[in-house]
Amino acid sequence: MTGFPDVATFDAALAALREPDAAAIAAAEARQGQLTKPPGSLGRLEELAIFLAGWQGRERPRIDRGRVAVFAGNHGVAARGVSAFPAAVTAQMVANFEAGGAAINALARAAGLELTVVPLELDRPTADFTTAPAMSEAECLTALSAGAAVVEDGLDLLVVGEMGIANSTAAAALCLRSFGGVAADWVGPGTGVDSAGIGRKIAAVEAAIACHGDAPHTPFETLRRVGGRELAAIGGAVLAARAKGIAVVLDGFISGAAIAPLAAAAPDIVGHCIAGHRSAEPGHVRLLDQLGLQPLLTLDMRLGEASGAAVAVAVIRSALAAHAGMATFAEAGVSGAG
Amino acid sequence: MTGFPDVATFDAALAALREPDAAAIAAAEARQGQLTKPPGSLGRLEELAIFLAGWQGRERPRIDRGRVAVFAGNHGVAARGVSAFPAAVTAQMVANFEAGGAAINALARAAGLELTVVPLELDRPTADFTTAPAMSEAECLTALSAGAAVVEDGLDLLVVGEMGIANSTAAAALCLRSFGGVAADWVGPGTGVDSAGIGRKIAAVEAAIACHGDAPHTPFETLRRVGGRELAAIGGAVLAARAKGIAVVLDGFISGAAIAPLAAAAPDIVGHCIAGHRSAEPGHVRLLDQLGLQPLLTLDMRLGEASGAAVAVAVIRSALAAHAGMATFAEAGVSGAG
Repeated sequence: MTGFPDVATFDAALAALREPDAAAIAAAEARQGQLTKPPGSLGRLEELAIFLAGWQGRERPRIDRGRVAVFAGNHGVAARGVSAFPAAVTAQMVANFEAGGAAINALARAAGLELTVVPLELDRPTADFTTAPAMSEAECLTALSAGAAVVEDGLDLLVVGEMGIANSTAAAALCLRSFGGVAADWVGPGTGVDSAGIGRKIAAVEAAIACHGDAPHTPFETLRRVGGRELAAIGGAVLAARAKGIAVVLDGFISGAAIAPLAAAAPDIVGHCIAGHRSAEPGHVRLLDQLGLQPLLTLDMRLGEASGAAVAVAVIRSALAAHAGMATFAEAGVSGAG
Repeated sequence: MTGFPDVATFDAALAALREPDAAAIAAAEARQGQLTKPPGSLGRLEELAIFLAGWQGRERPRIDRGRVAVFAGNHGVAARGVSAFPAAVTAQMVANFEAGGAAINALARAAGLELTVVPLELDRPTADFTTAPAMSEAECLTALSAGAAVVEDGLDLLVVGEMGIANSTAAAALCLRSFGGVAADWVGPGTGVDSAGIGRKIAAVEAAIACHGDAPHTPFETLRRVGGRELAAIGGAVLAARAKGIAVVLDGFISGAAIAPLAAAAPDIVGHCIAGHRSAEPGHVRLLDQLGLQPLLTLDMRLGEASGAAVAVAVIRSALAAHAGMATFAEAGVSGAG
């Protein structure tokens, strides 16, 4: 996958999703049944090991090389007072990522992950999607391709996250246009706006839906009209990872919203995805339900930056360590259930 | 603390619980408010860092030396058919721990923790508590002291867990005698008994409560009458850790049940404890509610061995990494909320 040069390439990728390796899944399941524990007693740790076996194509999956990709973008809708922070913070936080001072720097280090930060034309915000498409076709394809570009061969796991002042408003618009409901279902405090700010977010989302209501409800059109560069990049990264058989850990509400348009058309797009956590953003419960994903962690986090997903990787590593490192009943001379 | 030579020493320790370091808590809270993220956006990660700051007495807590202690014991009540596994499995699993082949070996390694396994007279099961006290006073004090003995000076964190065929029946009896209800509230499948086995567990718990109903409902008497050596050891370890200001991560239902008698008399015994996870055992929800603890993880685990708690430590490490490693707004030149 060298990116998405045109809409047809994107549509074709979404229409032909790769399947996991059935033989590796069967081998991992058989191994789990022989390890020195009551069957099923490691719960989701067992599921995680089997899931990654399928995507990595080996009985004992591992994370020698896991990458966090944080995409950053700016949003025209920020001018509508939808965030507690000024738009300048996006670039300031990218500088903080690059200097190593943000939460994701510490959390990626703790989880043994490399970190790639991808700022997407921060000095050129998307158009205000309450009155026009956020991006042109070419801009959206460029953002999708920037996402695909982080998916290097040889990665054992990809973790995706974002930074973008005002992007929880774009995320809500993506969810509403993808899954329906009303704006208030998908709008929340984000990084911490007050109730007046939530009112402005709801108004912006309603205006966006009204403005673009007659346009085609395809994944591409929804992403480009009411999304943003960092959101399209996440969509591109998730789709490119699928083509390479690389499992993805999604961060919170905004990362999930980035694939909402894809999932509305092709629900199995989540087949290689793990929901790293359930964020404190109210709409995330509804979104996870629509995506059919059960979050690994619920820690009341709501930062973004892939922070929750990076913490989830620590749990995934535990799952793989138990799967690969435990003895079987036969090896240990332990009696099975009577 | 050199252990519990007599009941008065145990009672006195429980009556004089140490407080965390208020200055370190204040310093850690202040630091959290200055880090480059919206206030509160790291959710429970922030709480964990502040909690450990209080117990470690430093603004930036760390886990240079964390220890998992797994206590193992055998139970007379096993003869009543309350487990899916034969009693011989307790010793076999201890050998597996010592050989490095169990889940806790892999999970402790993954979490960067040292592992201490403490088998407690496995060839001498406790008495069947449906007809007699499980332990004599001397036996219970020895078990409490064995727990205290793992709490070495210099530990930054203690993680407690257990192994003992039939001990989910003892755990249910401890919960019922400590917090009331009916036997069925506290009995579940444990490592995987069928419905007939659950019926035998309920009958055993009811018989235990009837047998010891008139005895004093003190923590010590409850532990020694319907507990077990590994359960008393956990109680002793948790109490000794408190005296040294060392925070404890509890594993699942059985580890929590071990401190139920202590908590019934002194609810603040959980003040230095983190509930590592909520296990799949149905009674654990009720137990956590009684203890006033919110579990860090919910992964449908039900193995014991401190396995869930060890996974939780991976999350705790993430919390400490973010707390210690992030830049402040001033250091990073990032604007605060507008």
